[in-house]
Amino acid sequence: MNGLLAWWKGCCDSSKLLRFVDLNLRGIGQVMFQDNPLSGLLFFLAIAWGSYAAGMPQVAIGGLVAVVAGTLAAQWLHVDADGLAAGLYGYNAYLVGLALGTFLAVSPLWWVYVALGGAVSVVATLAIANLFKTWGVAALTAPFVLTAWLMLLATYAFSAIDGSGLPMATEVAPLDPAAANPLAFGDFVTGVFKSVSQVFLKASVLAALLLLAGLAVNSIAAAAFAVGGAMVAVVTAHFLGAESDLVTGGLMGFSPVLTAIALGAVFYKPSLRVAIYALVGTMFTVIVQGAMNVALTPFGIPTLTAPFVLASWLFLLPRQHFE
Amino acid sequence: MNGLLAWWKGCCDSSKLLRFVDLNLRGIGQVMFQDNPLSGLLFFLAIAWGSYAAGMPQVAIGGLVAVVAGTLAAQWLHVDADGLAAGLYGYNAYLVGLALGTFLAVSPLWWVYVALGGAVSVVATLAIANLFKTWGVAALTAPFVLTAWLMLLATYAFSAIDGSGLPMATEVAPLDPAAANPLAFGDFVTGVFKSVSQVFLKASVLAALLLLAGLAVNSIAAAAFAVGGAMVAVVTAHFLGAESDLVTGGLMGFSPVLTAIALGAVFYKPSLRVAIYALVGTMFTVIVQGAMNVALTPFGIPTLTAPFVLASWLFLLPRQHFE
Amino acid sequence: MNGLLAWWKGCCDSSKLLRFVDLNLRGIGQVMFQDNPLSGLLFFLAIAWGSYAAGMPQVAIGGLVAVVAGTLAAQWLHVDADGLAAGLYGYNAYLVGLALGTFLAVSPLWWVYVALGGAVSVVATLAIANLFKTWGVAALTAPFVLTAWLMLLATYAFSAIDGSGLPMATEVAPLDPAAANPLAFGDFVTGVFKSVSQVFLKASVLAALLLLAGLAVNSIAAAAFAVGGAMVAVVTAHFLGAESDLVTGGLMGFSPVLTAIALGAVFYKPSLRVAIYALVGTMFTVIVQGAMNVALTPFGIPTLTAPFVLASWLFLLPRQHFE
Repeated sequence: MNGLLAWWKGCCDSSKLLRFVDLNLRGIGQVMFQDNPLSGLLFFLAIAWGSYAAGMPQVAIGGLVAVVAGTLAAQWLHVDADGLAAGLYGYNAYLVGLALGTFLAVSPLWWVYVALGGAVSVVATLAIANLFKTWGVAALTAPFVLTAWLMLLATYAFSAIDGSGLPMATEVAPLDPAAANPLAFGDFVTGVFKSVSQVFLKASVLAALLLLAGLAVNSIAAAAFAVGGAMVAVVTAHFLGAESDLVTGGLMGFSPVLTAIALGAVFYKPSLRVAIYALVGTMFTVIVQGAMNVALTPFGIPTLTAPFVLASWLFLLPRQHFE
Repeated sequence: MNGLLAWWKGCCDSSKLLRFVDLNLRGIGQVMFQDNPLSGLLFFLAIAWGSYAAGMPQVAIGGLVAVVAGTLAAQWLHVDADGLAAGLYGYNAYLVGLALGTFLAVSPLWWVYVALGGAVSVVATLAIANLFKTWGVAALTAPFVLTAWLMLLATYAFSAIDGSGLPMATEVAPLDPAAANPLAFGDFVTGVFKSVSQVFLKASVLAALLLLAGLAVNSIAAAAFAVGGAMVAVVTAHFLGAESDLVTGGLMGFSPVLTAIALGAVFYKPSLRVAIYALVGTMFTVIVQGAMNVALTPFGIPTLTAPFVLASWLFLLPRQHFE
Repeated sequence: MNGLLAWWKGCCDSSKLLRFVDLNLRGIGQVMFQDNPLSGLLFFLAIAWGSYAAGMPQVAIGGLVAVVAGTLAAQWLHVDADGLAAGLYGYNAYLVGLALGTFLAVSPLWWVYVALGGAVSVVATLAIANLFKTWGVAALTAPFVLTAWLMLLATYAFSAIDGSGLPMATEVAPLDPAAANPLAFGDFVTGVFKSVSQVFLKASVLAALLLLAGLAVNSIAAAAFAVGGAMVAVVTAHFLGAESDLVTGGLMGFSPVLTAIALGAVFYKPSLRVAIYALVGTMFTVIVQGAMNVALTPFGIPTLTAPFVLASWLFLLPRQHFE
């Protein structure tokens, strides 16, 4: 693996084009905190497959357009070289593209909207990172959430952008208990894998396997916390009586998966205490996911990864108590 | 009084269990800013009575479970010893327990939910205190509000947690003027006392008297600003034409009571200028209470003490202009 | 012009009353970032004319009451002398008065409400400026937005304050494409001018001309960016398919106008790079305006200049990348 990466590094040193490809792949890898072009490539293949299998190639294409627009915007803005080289200005752009591809219909204006979203996500990354570095905490995917929420909400005000893929705005009401069924073992397994793939807005077991491979090539711990986080999330959501379709579709688990990786394998040094803390944080993220599903009901937009961002900031801000 | 507290201090020094009891009592006392175990005991008795009289013992029990869970979590997290000893990691947990006891139905899972809420409120306290110490401003009850809002909102998404005690989500519409009646003197007095007891989510005159006693044993000024704040709030809300049932039930006044204590007797040195400032802040908190009642209408959750937090932060952040 | 201002300065030095008038005029001028009493006077005349022409003199009067209350509150609070002299404690108060005059019906209590709003906006200015100076970013009109939102929302809870001028709360739903018509040249011109006047909540071409004159006497660049921003906003909103009545009424353009001035002529040193950045920021503000129109639909309150505040903070926080 190291030989492969060394060879690739050599290629990038001798080619501006390959260097640019490298930046974008690392950007995609950073969606799950991996500064590794091979992780990014595997993530990209996972999304390409998931989009193709779902009959929605515009998702993968939207992601690609947005991440390239984001990387170009970052270069134009003269962002810090280290952050750019590590892909930190790409992952929010990539997610914006996936979200606009998932929820909006393609039209000529859609391409402009996606490219603008990728570029603005870099401005949002600079802004939010600037705010939170005050407390030594990362921006996480908040720039993606903010940019995409605004651009999705706005589609209700603009007739030339078609947001017909968005959920319909309805009134807040208690969940019908009939929507929460017993959890069969097969549903549990499906829910775990789809919780991983829904990090990239996809419900696909094969995509999940490619994503886990992409994690494992750079960090076995990250892959382990991803699977563990997904299992905790599916069990917690089920015991709380969440809607079974959401649980098995991975829609209660993608934010907890990110929380588990962030708390367990990225921002804290692994230990038993940290694992317990990450467990509580992951379970609480399921509650935040439920709360945000409810809070956004009147607005007709999805939570995206906002539950991960909120819960992880909450559990990262007291950082000093583990160091 | 000092002799009693000295004796109690001696008891705590020689017993880990009594020390733990002391931490929890001070935690309860800090709901109204009092670092005093006797205040905490009187507050606890007030809530116990209010819960019993309302036929809802689960409120007092929920508070107890949550504050113990919070104190244990704080110890496990190695929080700063001074803050822990002063009860600063207990009051948010206690309030979370009271809120989950008030709005949710008891079930086996409820106990887990309450204990988790108490523990997570400590993480939220560390996080929010960390943010706001940048500007020399306290977290107030924001950790309680954030934790409880998320856990209450989430009940609409989870069929195994029964939130049938929550208000129903409805559309925002102007208040029917017929709901605002003339204010009789008896209603005024009831409104003032219940404004004090609603700080702990209880509508009880006897509880209010116990709470005022708890304040007075530690700070006469705090007790005076509590009563004064309640009077200002009831009069202001009435003149603005608020719903009479809310005014006399104390539901327009509990946040202003906290603002009055915070601005008048805790965070600023008492003076005439400060009293005028606290008066304006208390009146404005009534407007914020009205605004937040409206803003939360579509979500089916109560404001809790969010109006106090928002208004007090607003009036505390310009602190330098009084010192 | 300089002679005139020098003469006025002399008058103010010899008269406390004229000094007070000067403070208030500069406060009005700062609504569009101009520390110049002549700009303030022209802005005031523009609003006076717009209010009179619309048959709503209470708008201009509300603004006047609030800005005077705000200036008095600022003096009572001993705010910093430089900021006070530059009008930085007046523009939010003035806007609060205009908003309360526009959306609420006049009654005896309305006068108190307006004066209280003007005074509280100064507290909000101190608070928000204190928060954001951490990152070297100005409070912009956030104190106005926060104060006015709370006071407008609260009218739904208070029967003695009549908010019948507010939009009705409704459910979020996609825009009917029939509401977006082709843009005739005359509509374009009207939309551009009204986008300028709507910064002060007025739809009047003559008011817009007076406002542009007020800008030009202090800063030709500011006037140019105002007109340019309005043109970009009208075209962007039209191409996105916004409701034509909003576009030609200036209601999609007033926040972008402020963003254009702020990014292009106030907080960054003018250059080609900055102009491109301001262009993207102005276009994105149109999207934020659309998003916020949607997000506030269930609450029955207008966005005020919140889209400008959010978009400009986003584009100002990464400031270092241009300096």
